[in-house]
Amino acid sequence: MIGVTIFGSGRMGAIYAAALASSAHARLVSVVNPNLSSAERLVAQHGGVALRDPDAALADPSVDAVIITTPTDTHLEFIQRAVSAGKAILCEKPLDLSLDRVDACVDLITESDVAFMLGFNRRFDPGVGALREAVDAGDVGKLNILMLTSRDPAPPPLSYIRTSGGYWADSTVHDIDLACWIAGEQPVKVFATGSCLVDPGIGEAGDVDTSMTILKMPSGCLVHINNSRRAVYGFDQRIEAFGDAGMIQAANLHEDNLLHWDSKRTKAKAPLEHFFLERYARSFQLALEAFVLAVGENNPPTPTASDGHRALAIALACEDSRRRGCWVRPQYRDYGSAGISK
Amino acid sequence: MIGVTIFGSGRMGAIYAAALASSAHARLVSVVNPNLSSAERLVAQHGGVALRDPDAALADPSVDAVIITTPTDTHLEFIQRAVSAGKAILCEKPLDLSLDRVDACVDLITESDVAFMLGFNRRFDPGVGALREAVDAGDVGKLNILMLTSRDPAPPPLSYIRTSGGYWADSTVHDIDLACWIAGEQPVKVFATGSCLVDPGIGEAGDVDTSMTILKMPSGCLVHINNSRRAVYGFDQRIEAFGDAGMIQAANLHEDNLLHWDSKRTKAKAPLEHFFLERYARSFQLALEAFVLAVGENNPPTPTASDGHRALAIALACEDSRRRGCWVRPQYRDYGSAGISK
Amino acid sequence: MIGVTIFGSGRMGAIYAAALASSAHARLVSVVNPNLSSAERLVAQHGGVALRDPDAALADPSVDAVIITTPTDTHLEFIQRAVSAGKAILCEKPLDLSLDRVDACVDLITESDVAFMLGFNRRFDPGVGALREAVDAGDVGKLNILMLTSRDPAPPPLSYIRTSGGYWADSTVHDIDLACWIAGEQPVKVFATGSCLVDPGIGEAGDVDTSMTILKMPSGCLVHINNSRRAVYGFDQRIEAFGDAGMIQAANLHEDNLLHWDSKRTKAKAPLEHFFLERYARSFQLALEAFVLAVGENNPPTPTASDGHRALAIALACEDSRRRGCWVRPQYRDYGSAGISK
Amino acid sequence: MIGVTIFGSGRMGAIYAAALASSAHARLVSVVNPNLSSAERLVAQHGGVALRDPDAALADPSVDAVIITTPTDTHLEFIQRAVSAGKAILCEKPLDLSLDRVDACVDLITESDVAFMLGFNRRFDPGVGALREAVDAGDVGKLNILMLTSRDPAPPPLSYIRTSGGYWADSTVHDIDLACWIAGEQPVKVFATGSCLVDPGIGEAGDVDTSMTILKMPSGCLVHINNSRRAVYGFDQRIEAFGDAGMIQAANLHEDNLLHWDSKRTKAKAPLEHFFLERYARSFQLALEAFVLAVGENNPPTPTASDGHRALAIALACEDSRRRGCWVRPQYRDYGSAGISK
Repeated sequence: MIGVTIFGSGRMGAIYAAALASSAHARLVSVVNPNLSSAERLVAQHGGVALRDPDAALADPSVDAVIITTPTDTHLEFIQRAVSAGKAILCEKPLDLSLDRVDACVDLITESDVAFMLGFNRRFDPGVGALREAVDAGDVGKLNILMLTSRDPAPPPLSYIRTSGGYWADSTVHDIDLACWIAGEQPVKVFATGSCLVDPGIGEAGDVDTSMTILKMPSGCLVHINNSRRAVYGFDQRIEAFGDAGMIQAANLHEDNLLHWDSKRTKAKAPLEHFFLERYARSFQLALEAFVLAVGENNPPTPTASDGHRALAIALACEDSRRRGCWVRPQYRDYGSAGISK
Repeated sequence: MIGVTIFGSGRMGAIYAAALASSAHARLVSVVNPNLSSAERLVAQHGGVALRDPDAALADPSVDAVIITTPTDTHLEFIQRAVSAGKAILCEKPLDLSLDRVDACVDLITESDVAFMLGFNRRFDPGVGALREAVDAGDVGKLNILMLTSRDPAPPPLSYIRTSGGYWADSTVHDIDLACWIAGEQPVKVFATGSCLVDPGIGEAGDVDTSMTILKMPSGCLVHINNSRRAVYGFDQRIEAFGDAGMIQAANLHEDNLLHWDSKRTKAKAPLEHFFLERYARSFQLALEAFVLAVGENNPPTPTASDGHRALAIALACEDSRRRGCWVRPQYRDYGSAGISK
Repeated sequence: MIGVTIFGSGRMGAIYAAALASSAHARLVSVVNPNLSSAERLVAQHGGVALRDPDAALADPSVDAVIITTPTDTHLEFIQRAVSAGKAILCEKPLDLSLDRVDACVDLITESDVAFMLGFNRRFDPGVGALREAVDAGDVGKLNILMLTSRDPAPPPLSYIRTSGGYWADSTVHDIDLACWIAGEQPVKVFATGSCLVDPGIGEAGDVDTSMTILKMPSGCLVHINNSRRAVYGFDQRIEAFGDAGMIQAANLHEDNLLHWDSKRTKAKAPLEHFFLERYARSFQLALEAFVLAVGENNPPTPTASDGHRALAIALACEDSRRRGCWVRPQYRDYGSAGISK
Repeated sequence: MIGVTIFGSGRMGAIYAAALASSAHARLVSVVNPNLSSAERLVAQHGGVALRDPDAALADPSVDAVIITTPTDTHLEFIQRAVSAGKAILCEKPLDLSLDRVDACVDLITESDVAFMLGFNRRFDPGVGALREAVDAGDVGKLNILMLTSRDPAPPPLSYIRTSGGYWADSTVHDIDLACWIAGEQPVKVFATGSCLVDPGIGEAGDVDTSMTILKMPSGCLVHINNSRRAVYGFDQRIEAFGDAGMIQAANLHEDNLLHWDSKRTKAKAPLEHFFLERYARSFQLALEAFVLAVGENNPPTPTASDGHRALAIALACEDSRRRGCWVRPQYRDYGSAGISK
């Protein structure tokens, strides 16, 4: 049973607090927020103590691990403090929006002895995991085409867009990590384009809300990603892996298993699972369990900080490609595809 | 190229006239209806001559075959005349509503030399045929359960109900024929029940509009049939064959292959094929082609008059069971399951 | 937080022990089994103490409720003891195989003050619940036809069959309860038939392994149930509700959401959820939560002992119908359809 | 009833001869092939006379129209002769592989009085047509993303590849025409890339066998096309239209409507329709009927020669983009999106 403190008590903090409450191998020791009343609401529901001071939380010997869910620009600082305190770390994505700073962070973590997991939770979705396993087992043969469709039900507020780092670093980065993880290689070059079709304010902020991305893999495998900030029918999350021996599709999930037929038409009553909190609820729980297990057994958790570096390098190359209108090579560190954590 | 006359120019006559028009191996010579203008409308569209007198049509040496689509109570008379004239016969179902008269008709046809086909068109539906072939090939192993769902989009007029011979002889008889054809055996006993839930007038006419039927086969295989006179979502036609090696389902057909998703829910825009004219259009065409081919090659067509006798015997036993509330054994002729035409 | 003792530490005892372990509102106090080592295995995994003596467990003031998972012929005795001790009761189905004894048990529970829930867990399956709610909300209009398909992946041992009370009392009873619960009425008469197609030993034991059942409801609604002891493709659990405004189907659940396509054919890789432990895992958990909540809030839980009486009366009437080959009226107590718990 | 001559008696000639045989409004007068025995095989099956000399066929006053199915490099010459003879023309795609020559051909046809149809048959596929109508009717709102998947079951011989004009001009051109037709606009710029993953010989010939294409529309709509020369599970033909009011998918067609379940897994037995002869059989027939009807009623048929010019201009721009690795603007004639025939 490991003790955990959560930094931040917003939406993601609440998800991890609930996941801890139903974990048999970890318990919530404290929740930290300078706005103490926010932290207090969370501990009232899930136990532990509310604290203002992160260092007080890290000084508690019953705390083995820290989950960082604070704003992106504070991640590196809290990682440094947790490393100094020798605590295991689960940090929400993205590590940071600067590739150089992420680079330094990878070094810091690598040189230290602490366990570190990056919150690319979608790797823990059972369907995504089953698809990757099937690809890995050769069920589709040699991978030729990989297609990821990821469309949000509705755009976030413009205030969020403005500090998000752009559509690729903020959102496509999830699909980029999954693509590399499933294909087992990282792209030699990327091409990306986008349009502003959902909210003109997003365009005025210099960003796009509808995008297409191509990753060209060393093997010749072509990866397509399409994203939209608004799918009125719900959170559309599909993956298709096509190879020389067949195809596998990971289908959308629906809220229930009912089919309705009336005088107008056949219909599936249940809409798609609404958004990431619902659709990936299970993956957050499984990600937490994997982290807790790895920490408890002294194994290195995945996804790693290096996975975060790779995904950000690709996302920034996409952003660059969108502006330049041509292929762009991502600025990887030197570990190559071999560095993709399993 | 065989020459064909059609007796009757109503809905079924029009179907066969159209089927003949697109057949490469048969041509429409004449259409017979005492109401000449009705026949004239059909020949204006599909060719041939309109006649009042059936004997004139049968006397025409360019006529090789007759398709009988007149009211049920005239079927036997026209079959007799066609047999006398030595013409091949395709007769709409049912042959007749009296088991004794059907018995005599089977003898008449058997003793004569004429080719005879009964219009159980659903045997020619590609999906039904593929299911039967799969069962025959052992794809589900030994058949344990066979389920047929057959629901009309809307009830016929009460005037039709009153002369229909009852729900089982009029409608379930199709499912009964398919059940015997697929299972390759005929039931030792049957149980049936019904309710009047669609139109009280149907109940007042002594009939039901919603029914369930169980056929118990010699092998122990259990057959379920459910029927309704009103499925607001369209003509619901499904078959499920379950055996010791698996299950096969023949699914409903939709008007197109589009799937729609909007802010309310997922839906298949296309309703089911509306009713039998649409749903079984292909089977009418294929039935006609099979008949024309058999006649042209001097092979005996199927389904046979004996198939009609069997299905009627079972339907009447069902009607009897519904009234008595217990198992009833159908009054078969003596040829047994071996008599089920392939 | 209520304290619970479990009588019996077999398969069902283990399910409830696991469900208690992840419940936030109840805790496992003890597990009782005269074979102490079996109880010890369970408490080693989920906490609590292992006891040989049921009375010792009932005497513990920290125990608020007892879950009875012992063999069927001991249910009534343990219910009596729990009633005497004033403990809330969750009893596995069936209450008993004798209608008279169940009758007496209903009276005992009704006259006492204790909360009682019968373990018809399938009512708590989210898909079944959503279907019932939709029917209740009028989504299919007036219910005309209700169809339940329930096929096990493989037959139980013959030793189980011999003491099971027959196919209807043992297995169909689940479908019978769901049918009454969904339709909101209880049948005026029933018809049932069966075959022995899976294992000749089942036939030698006087039982069947393949069955069809018809329930005729007061409204005229017709209910069909088909059961088989062996579906090689997995645990086949489907419900279809058809009414004058449309149809709703509760589809089977698959192990994952992947679709595979290879050179032979399209296929869904995932088989169905294997058997009831997997397929209804969630419903066991939700049933337990509903029980714990009702006990904690002093509300009467459902399904009730009366629901058990009704379902058994119908199942025994089915068994009788199978032997007599005609409609049979179930021997209800006098509370009628109004007694179906919501 | 219009009279038709077919130039060429290969695979496409045979398709049109069969389509004519079952057309009620046209008849096959002659088939032309310098290899007379090939033409003779076709007329033996479908009627008409076999000729060596195209001019003899065009001189026949009973010939109203010519269908050109000869090798691509002969199309323009035969179009010129048919224009001179005043015959209506249905020409297989592509018109030619040179944009300049197609340009001249568009002028020739425009200045003449003859009816001309380009054989982009997929526009006549019922599912594609229904999808376009739905998009046109606003069912998905403003189009944001359009995705076309088009994968062949197996690659053609290398000899075919070498004279095909490259993957985009040969194959993607179909998807390009559909994309413009569905979206109702033509791209301002295109990006394309490809890999050689199926047959190294294709790479040695300077071509690719796996490709991804992005079309950027004036409205901001993003179009994705993916192509492969080898999908082992059959001819994979899907379209997805995503807009601000929802999504529509045109699904693959299967050979039958059966679903199989066995001890290994659920499966749809029927593979996809094998290749274009099977999958688009109906669209070839409907294209011919549309052409015959337009000619008979003196209406201009579609798709037009201009549609062919546009699609080729886009395909060549894709080929250029693939080599240069950046956006390329297609070299359109000056008629713009307004020139896309309905």
